[in-house]
Amino acid sequence: MSPIGSLLWRHSRVVQVYGSNTDVGKTVITSILCNATRKIWKDEKTAYLKPISTGPRDEADQNHIARFTTGVSYGNLFQYGEPLSPHIAAKGNVISDDRVLASVYEYASRRAAAGPGWLFIETAGGIHSPGPSGTPQADLYAALRCPVVLVGDWKLGGISSTISAFECLKIRGYDVESIVLFNHDRFGNSDYLKEYFMEKHGILVAALPMPPKRAPRRKDNELMQAYYLHASQVPEVKETLKRLDDRHSSRIKALENSAADAHQKIWYPFTQQSLLQPKDILPIDSASGNHFQTLVPESPTAPSEKPLLQPSFDGSASWWTQGLGHGNSSLTLAAAYAAGRYGHVMFAGMVHKPALDLATSMLEITQNPRLSRVFFSDNGSTGMEVAVKMALRAARTRYGWSADTKIDILGLKGSYHGDTIGTMDCSEPNTYNEKVEWYEGKGVWLDYPQVQCVAGQWQVQIPSEFDAGRQHGFSNLSDIFHLDQRIARGEHKKYEAYILSTLQRHLDEGRKFGALILEPVVLGAGGMVLVDPLFQKTLVDVVRNNASIFGSDSLSTNSPDDKMWSGLPVVFDEVFTGLYRLGRPMAASFLDTHPDISVHAKLMTGGLVPLCVTLASESIFDAFASEEKSDALLHGHSYTAHPVGCQVALESLKKLQSMDKTGDWAWAKPDGWLEADDVVIDSDVPQTNPRVWSIWPLTFVHWVSLHTTKVAGVWALGSVLAIHLRASDGSGYTSTAAEGLRQRLLAGVKNESSGVVERTLEGSRQRSIHNG
Amino acid sequence: MSPIGSLLWRHSRVVQVYGSNTDVGKTVITSILCNATRKIWKDEKTAYLKPISTGPRDEADQNHIARFTTGVSYGNLFQYGEPLSPHIAAKGNVISDDRVLASVYEYASRRAAAGPGWLFIETAGGIHSPGPSGTPQADLYAALRCPVVLVGDWKLGGISSTISAFECLKIRGYDVESIVLFNHDRFGNSDYLKEYFMEKHGILVAALPMPPKRAPRRKDNELMQAYYLHASQVPEVKETLKRLDDRHSSRIKALENSAADAHQKIWYPFTQQSLLQPKDILPIDSASGNHFQTLVPESPTAPSEKPLLQPSFDGSASWWTQGLGHGNSSLTLAAAYAAGRYGHVMFAGMVHKPALDLATSMLEITQNPRLSRVFFSDNGSTGMEVAVKMALRAARTRYGWSADTKIDILGLKGSYHGDTIGTMDCSEPNTYNEKVEWYEGKGVWLDYPQVQCVAGQWQVQIPSEFDAGRQHGFSNLSDIFHLDQRIARGEHKKYEAYILSTLQRHLDEGRKFGALILEPVVLGAGGMVLVDPLFQKTLVDVVRNNASIFGSDSLSTNSPDDKMWSGLPVVFDEVFTGLYRLGRPMAASFLDTHPDISVHAKLMTGGLVPLCVTLASESIFDAFASEEKSDALLHGHSYTAHPVGCQVALESLKKLQSMDKTGDWAWAKPDGWLEADDVVIDSDVPQTNPRVWSIWPLTFVHWVSLHTTKVAGVWALGSVLAIHLRASDGSGYTSTAAEGLRQRLLAGVKNESSGVVERTLEGSRQRSIHNG
Repeated sequence: MSPIGSLLWRHSRVVQVYGSNTDVGKTVITSILCNATRKIWKDEKTAYLKPISTGPRDEADQNHIARFTTGVSYGNLFQYGEPLSPHIAAKGNVISDDRVLASVYEYASRRAAAGPGWLFIETAGGIHSPGPSGTPQADLYAALRCPVVLVGDWKLGGISSTISAFECLKIRGYDVESIVLFNHDRFGNSDYLKEYFMEKHGILVAALPMPPKRAPRRKDNELMQAYYLHASQVPEVKETLKRLDDRHSSRIKALENSAADAHQKIWYPFTQQSLLQPKDILPIDSASGNHFQTLVPESPTAPSEKPLLQPSFDGSASWWTQGLGHGNSSLTLAAAYAAGRYGHVMFAGMVHKPALDLATSMLEITQNPRLSRVFFSDNGSTGMEVAVKMALRAARTRYGWSADTKIDILGLKGSYHGDTIGTMDCSEPNTYNEKVEWYEGKGVWLDYPQVQCVAGQWQVQIPSEFDAGRQHGFSNLSDIFHLDQRIARGEHKKYEAYILSTLQRHLDEGRKFGALILEPVVLGAGGMVLVDPLFQKTLVDVVRNNASIFGSDSLSTNSPDDKMWSGLPVVFDEVFTGLYRLGRPMAASFLDTHPDISVHAKLMTGGLVPLCVTLASESIFDAFASEEKSDALLHGHSYTAHPVGCQVALESLKKLQSMDKTGDWAWAKPDGWLEADDVVIDSDVPQTNPRVWSIWPLTFVHWVSLHTTKVAGVWALGSVLAIHLRASDGSGYTSTAAEGLRQRLLAGVKNESSGVVERTLEGSRQRSIHNG
Repeated sequence: MSPIGSLLWRHSRVVQVYGSNTDVGKTVITSILCNATRKIWKDEKTAYLKPISTGPRDEADQNHIARFTTGVSYGNLFQYGEPLSPHIAAKGNVISDDRVLASVYEYASRRAAAGPGWLFIETAGGIHSPGPSGTPQADLYAALRCPVVLVGDWKLGGISSTISAFECLKIRGYDVESIVLFNHDRFGNSDYLKEYFMEKHGILVAALPMPPKRAPRRKDNELMQAYYLHASQVPEVKETLKRLDDRHSSRIKALENSAADAHQKIWYPFTQQSLLQPKDILPIDSASGNHFQTLVPESPTAPSEKPLLQPSFDGSASWWTQGLGHGNSSLTLAAAYAAGRYGHVMFAGMVHKPALDLATSMLEITQNPRLSRVFFSDNGSTGMEVAVKMALRAARTRYGWSADTKIDILGLKGSYHGDTIGTMDCSEPNTYNEKVEWYEGKGVWLDYPQVQCVAGQWQVQIPSEFDAGRQHGFSNLSDIFHLDQRIARGEHKKYEAYILSTLQRHLDEGRKFGALILEPVVLGAGGMVLVDPLFQKTLVDVVRNNASIFGSDSLSTNSPDDKMWSGLPVVFDEVFTGLYRLGRPMAASFLDTHPDISVHAKLMTGGLVPLCVTLASESIFDAFASEEKSDALLHGHSYTAHPVGCQVALESLKKLQSMDKTGDWAWAKPDGWLEADDVVIDSDVPQTNPRVWSIWPLTFVHWVSLHTTKVAGVWALGSVLAIHLRASDGSGYTSTAAEGLRQRLLAGVKNESSGVVERTLEGSRQRSIHNG
C-alpha cells in the first residue's frame, strides 16, 4: 500500500462513523451530529463524506444529509447503483484501496484548507463490510487513524454486535471515542452498553430517541424534521461532540509535547542524550506496513492548516525486527489468541502448545540435523548468554578443566552479540564496550577477508596479515558463494594456514578456548560487513578437524558421531542473519555448515514482541546431564517461552515460509541475480544451489559501486543492501555523505506494493576501517 | 470464578455453537449437525444442550430439536419466559456464572459417561449476548474451551458480523473450527467468507441451503422435514463434522504426546533434565483466572471415559508474573490495540504514546522524588544489567577512577538479580552460579537479620556476627516495620556498627565500591527471606552518610541536593517486591528510603509479555552526559519499549491502582492485621502508616508457626506467604515436607472469588541455612 498521511489537522476534526451492523441508523445519527456541530460551532464548517455508497442515487445517504441538515457540505466519492455490498456492486469497476484512501485524503485535505470545522466520514454497512476491492473497511481505513463514533445496534442481539464491532476496531488500533445508539425500551441495549463500556473502557454511550417509523415521502419529511429538531437537543449529543473535540485537542497536544516530554523522562538506548534535542525526537502516532505516521515538524512558512501527520519510511525495519510490516492483523490476532487462551504459563515442568510448536518449527526450519533442543529466552543478548554458557560448559567438561579455568572464545573482529555483560565479553574491545566498567573481552578475534562490489567488480578483500594482502576479483557474487569450486581451486589454503598459526600462537601462550562464535556471512551491528563465506567455512572446518589442539578429547575421537561437536562447540549468532534476511531460511546454509548452537530472535516474532530461542545439539545438552541439580543450566527469565511471543512467532514463520514457497519473492530473484531456472527454490530441500540473490536489483548495486569517490564498496544479499562510504570527516559514527545517500535511497525505494519488506541500512555503526 | 474443568473427553466431542448474530439459524444448523452425526456415527449418541433459553417454553429451541431430529437427547438448564436477552429476562432470578458453568459441566459429564458421542451446546443470541448474570457469553464460557462452530450471518451486513464474531472468539482463545451459514444468492456472503476464511485462517466455511420460509404449524413441519432431509446430505455438513472429529482427536493426541515431545525437544530453564521424566511435565491446554487446565494423568483404575482436563491452581502465579489472572480480556485487548496501532517502533530518536505514558506512570507510582528517567529493557535480568552499568559509571566518574579499575558492589548474602553474567556477578558465590564458567562474584555481601514468626512469636533473628547473635521478640509485624520508633530506641546502632566495620575492613584492603544493590524487604529467589527493614534502612543511611569512605567526593559535598546520590548509588531491585506484591505500590516505602535506581518487571505487564524498566535519578543520568557518543549508555535491545508491552503494562497498572484505591483488597486488611481505622489507605499520599498487612489471615500465619517440629518459621506480607521448613533430609533443594504442606495449602486456599490473586510459594530455592 502506498503511504498516505493519517487524517489529522489542528482545526479540522475528522471523525469516522462506523456501524455495529448494517441498518442501525448511521446516517441518521451522523445527521444529528452534523446538525449539532452547526449549532455549537457556529463559525465553523461541517462536512459529511460517504466515500462509498451503493443503491439508487436518490436514496443515497448524502441526500438524506442534504435534506435534513443545514449548512453541511456533503460528498460521495464512489457510487454503485445496486444496493449490495460494495465488493459485489463494484464487480467490473473495482477501485483499489490506494485510490479510495487517496480520494478520502484529498477530500479531507480540502475540507481542512477551508477553515476550522468538522468532517464526518460515514462508512458502509458494518465495520468488516468489504470495500470495493474486497478489503474489509476496518482494515482498509485503519491507517487513516480517525477517531471513531461507533453507532451501536439497538436491535435484539445488538449488545453482542456492538461489543464485537468495538473490539474489532480496537485491535486494529482505532480509538473508539464514543458509542451512539437509539434507545429501545424493550431490548434495553443502551442500559447494558452504558454500564459495560463505562466500566470496561471508560467510554460514553449516548442513547438517542428512536426515529419515527418510515412514512410516505412528504409525511416522512415532516416527521423526520421534527425528530431532528428534538434529537439534536438531547444533552448526550453535545457531550459526545465535546468529548470528540477534547480528545482531538488532547491527541494533538500529547503528540506535540511528546518529544519534549520524552526528552525529559526517557533514557534512550545507544544515545548520547547531551547531543539530543527535543527536535531530534520523532513522535510516532501509529505505524502500518513499512511506514510510521510521524508528526510533521513545525515550520514558520507552512500554511496555518497544514497536515500534522505524514508517512515516514521505516528504513531499518525498526532495528531489523519487521518481517511482515507494522500493524499486521494476522500477528495481532495470533498475539491476542494466545493472550486469551493462556496469558502466560510458567515454563518449568510444564508445556504448552505454542512453545512446543515453535520449538518443532524452529528445529525444522534450520535444516540442521545436529540441533535437537530449544531453550527460550527474551532477546538476542540473553539468547547468546545462554549459548555461551552452553558452549563453555560443554568444552570444560569434555576437556576436563576445573571450574575456575579461564576460558576464552574464538571469534571475528567486529562481531557483536548483545549488550549484557556476558555477551559484551564475547566481542573484542571497541568503542561500544571499552568504557563499560565490567566489560572484559574474553577471547581471541581473528581478522577476516570481506566481500564488496567496487567499481562494478565483485572482490574478496584479504587482510594484509594473511601472507600478503590482496584482492581477488570474481565475475559475480554467486561465484564467491560457490564454496566447493573455490575449495577445489585451493583458495581456502591460505585461510587455513592463517587460522591454524594464529590459534597455535594463542594456545602456546596457554589460552584455553571454549567456543567458536560467529555471525554467519554478515556482521550486522559491526558495520554490515559481508565476510568471505569461504573464510568462515574454513574456520569451522579447522576447528572441527583439529580437536586435539584444544584439549585431550577422547570422547569424540573414540565414538565418532557426525552430530557430536568436535574441537569447539560452534555457535552461530543468527539473530540478525537468520529467517530469510539473506534470502534463505538460515545464513548457515551459505556456509554449508551446521553449527552446534544457533541463536534466533528479531524477525522470528515478526516485529511485535521480544522472544529468542537458542537451539542446541544433543551433545551440548548432554554436557549438563548429571544427578546434581546444580549441574543444570540454571538460567531462566520470568516470561520464558511466553505463549504470546511463541504464537506470534509461529504465525510469522508460517507467513515467511509460505511467501518463500509460493514465490512471493520471485519477482526480485531474476533481477540480474539469477537465471530463470534458478528462480524457484524449494525451501524443503537443503540449499545446494549456490546462487545468491537480493531484492535489490543487481544493476542498481553495480551503479552504486561506480561512485568510487564517495563509495568504498557495496553489497546486497537477500533484503540487505550495505553501502560502505568513504567518510570525509574521518569519523566512524557520523557521516553527512551517508545521510545524503540514504535520502536518495529512501526516495527511490522500489516496488513497495509487493508485501516484501525491503529495507536499507548504511551501517550507522560502520567501523572506521570501512571508511577508508 | 471457581475452577471447573474444560470440557474434554476422549470419546465424547463437545462442540459449542455460537451465532454471529441473533436469528441467523443456530438451531436449524445445529439440528442439521445433530442429524448428520446420527447418520455417520450410528453406534454413538448425540445430545443437544441449550444452557439458557428465553421465550415461551413451547417455542424453545430444544422443542425444535425434539421435532426435527431423531435419536438426539436434548436438555435445557435455565429457561426464562420472556423472549428477551437473558440478562433482562433473568431479573430477579439471576444465576451466577459459576452455577451455569457447573451445570453445563455436569450435563456434559453425564453425556460423556453414557458412551461415545457428540454434544452440541447452543448459545443464546450473539457471541457477546449477556448470560443471566450479565457476563457476555463469549467470556462466560471461555474456560470450557469447547471447539466452536460459528454460525455465520447470511443477511445483508452478515460478512461484517461473521468476521467480527470470529475475531472476538479468537482473542478469547477459542478455536473456531468451522463456520456454517445459509447460502443467500443475492447477498453472496458465503462466497466472500469462504475465500476470506480459507486464505486468512485456513478455516472451512460451509454454505447450506436456506431453510423454507416460516409457514403455519403443520405445513411448517412438512417443509422443515423435507428441508432437513435435503440439508443433512450436503457434503459440507459431513466435511464440517469430519473436521471437528479430526481436530478433536488431534487435540487430544497433541496434549497426550506433548510431555514426551517436550521431554525430547525442550531445554527447560533451571532444570536438571536427567532427573526429569515425561510424566513430570504437565501439559497445559489453557489457563484462566488463577488456574491452568492441565491434562489428567493416566490412571489404570480410572473409568474408561474420565475427563481429560482438570483445573490446577497456579501456585507461584507463573513465577510471580500474574497480577490480574490468566486470560484477562482487558490485557488481551490492550496488547492487541498496540499491536494493531503500531506493531513495534524502534526506540531510537522516536517516541510513542504507550512508552511515554508508561514512563510517566512508573515515575509517579514509585513516589520517589529522586527518580526522573526511564530506561526500557526486556526482563529483570537485563534491567539489572542496565542498573549496574548506570551505578558503576556514576561512581567511577564521580570518584575519578580509571576505566580499568576493579569495582565491586555491596549487597546482601542470598541476593538474586537474574541469570545474565553481569547480574550473576552481583550475587555471592552459591549453588546457582559457582559452576557457571564466566561467573565471577564482584562484590561484598553482608549478613543480615531476618524476620519470622516462630511458635506464635514475631522475631528479628540477628546473626551471630553482629556482636552477639540473639532474637528480639515483637508483639506484631507492624511493630517491626515501625522504624522511627525502633530508631528512637537505638535498635539500629548495632547494625550501624557492624556495617561500618565490615565496610572499613574491605576498604582497607583496597576494594572500591560502585553500588549498593538491594532487594528491598524480601529476598525473593534467595529463599523468600524477610529481611529486617531496619537493617536495610540503616545500610542505606550508612552508605549515604559516609560518602568520604568510598572516594573523594567533592561534588555532593559542595553542592548539596537531596536528589543527588551520595556515597554509593543505591539500586533497588523491585522486580519481585514492587507493584503491590507486598501490599504497597513499592517495597521501598517500607524502608522510608528513596533509591537512586529502581528496577521493575514481572507484575508490571500483568503476566502477559516480558518488559522491564530501570528508573534512575538525574544525577545518575548526568554521569553519562558528554560530547562523546562513546560515553553514553550503549545498551539496547531490538524490542526496547515495544508498544505491546507498554500498553499492557499501562492497563495492568491502571487496574492494580484502581483495586488499591477502591479497596478491593480491604477485605483482607483487617483480618487480624489492621485496625478498622487503618483499612483505607490512600495510595496517593506517601505511606506514613507503618502498619503492614497480608491477604493471608494473621491467625493462619500464627497457626502455621506453631508447627515447630516441621516449621522453622513463617511470615506473610501482601500476597506473599513464606513458610521455612526444617528439612529432614538436609537438602536445600527438595523437601518432601514442603510438598506435603504445599498440598494442604493449595487445598485450603481461601476466598478465591475476590479477584485478588493470592499465591503461595514455599521457596523451592530455599537456602539450606533456613532448613536448620
